[in-house]
Amino acid sequence: MIVYPGGIKKNHPKKTTSFKNRGQNLEYEINLTNQYYRDIKKAVVYKKPVPIQIVKVDYPSRQAAVIKEAYYQTPSTTDYNGVYQGYALDFEAKETSSKTSFALRNIHPHQIEHLKAVLAQGAIAFVIIRFTAYEETYYVTAEDMIKLYSGKRRSIPYSWFQKSSYLIPYNYVIPVDYLKVIDEINKGD
Amino acid sequence: MIVYPGGIKKNHPKKTTSFKNRGQNLEYEINLTNQYYRDIKKAVVYKKPVPIQIVKVDYPSRQAAVIKEAYYQTPSTTDYNGVYQGYALDFEAKETSSKTSFALRNIHPHQIEHLKAVLAQGAIAFVIIRFTAYEETYYVTAEDMIKLYSGKRRSIPYSWFQKSSYLIPYNYVIPVDYLKVIDEINKGD
Repeated sequence: MIVYPGGIKKNHPKKTTSFKNRGQNLEYEINLTNQYYRDIKKAVVYKKPVPIQIVKVDYPSRQAAVIKEAYYQTPSTTDYNGVYQGYALDFEAKETSSKTSFALRNIHPHQIEHLKAVLAQGAIAFVIIRFTAYEETYYVTAEDMIKLYSGKRRSIPYSWFQKSSYLIPYNYVIPVDYLKVIDEINKGD
Repeated sequence: MIVYPGGIKKNHPKKTTSFKNRGQNLEYEINLTNQYYRDIKKAVVYKKPVPIQIVKVDYPSRQAAVIKEAYYQTPSTTDYNGVYQGYALDFEAKETSSKTSFALRNIHPHQIEHLKAVLAQGAIAFVIIRFTAYEETYYVTAEDMIKLYSGKRRSIPYSWFQKSSYLIPYNYVIPVDYLKVIDEINKGD
């Protein structure tokens, strides 16, 4: 159990001159956010474990198994999924250090196929993209990401995010409050 | 890509005297089922990878990472989730060799908490339980499982499954056709 907001205070930037030193990466902050959502019973979302191919396991005792040889596998889906007010949620998260654009090679073709498939089943699907240089985190709908990916471009300019996607609000308790964006989008319907 | 029904013919029992030798376990058959559902675009459901705590990784080259020490972790959720016709699906699967009952110690308390949480968010949640002795696979609603778990009993008798849960249909192409049960339950509403 995480104590709010005490447990998160360590995220507070130590240098007041720059937010770049907030020091926590996107995955960590999304995990904190999901933990918070679960604690207040707002949504149930988890990061999926990284798939690993296990080759060799030792059993030094009946209780303990030690994996001695294993390899990382490429995930065939997005990293996060769960349920929110009856909707299935499904999303991927990426950060870039570029100041000018997000390179589309960071998203795998099978992830795009997965986003198409879950959209077709009625999930709320999206991609969270952080520009670490600006400490800005954007919510891109799966529909937009699929369109951009299917075109000829190799990257999405930073200006596109500013104009055409949603800035995800940040605060110390909910570092990546993506449900606020979902609520806003649905309110607009 | 799996070829249907050719690729599944190897599941055909070699001894005609008993279905016990069908030879594939529940997880394998659920994975085949989910693959089939994805291929015909009926639902998008995956088994989550087993969570593993990685302690030591070697990098013999820039490309390859070899995990040299790692440990299995206890999952905090159920094993399977996904999306079906706008609904979030969430379920656990267990098999038992007992002919008389299913021992509730096979379900972890945190999995019951997880089932409660996803139900509260509107997911379709359930537990698939196979009696290997009878080659029968049952669909138990999360509501029923939570009720049974919260009582004083330590196991659920086989007769309960026959009377109060849903037998999941089997065929070679869709070995664990749990969506048929979901469709039936919803039709009855």
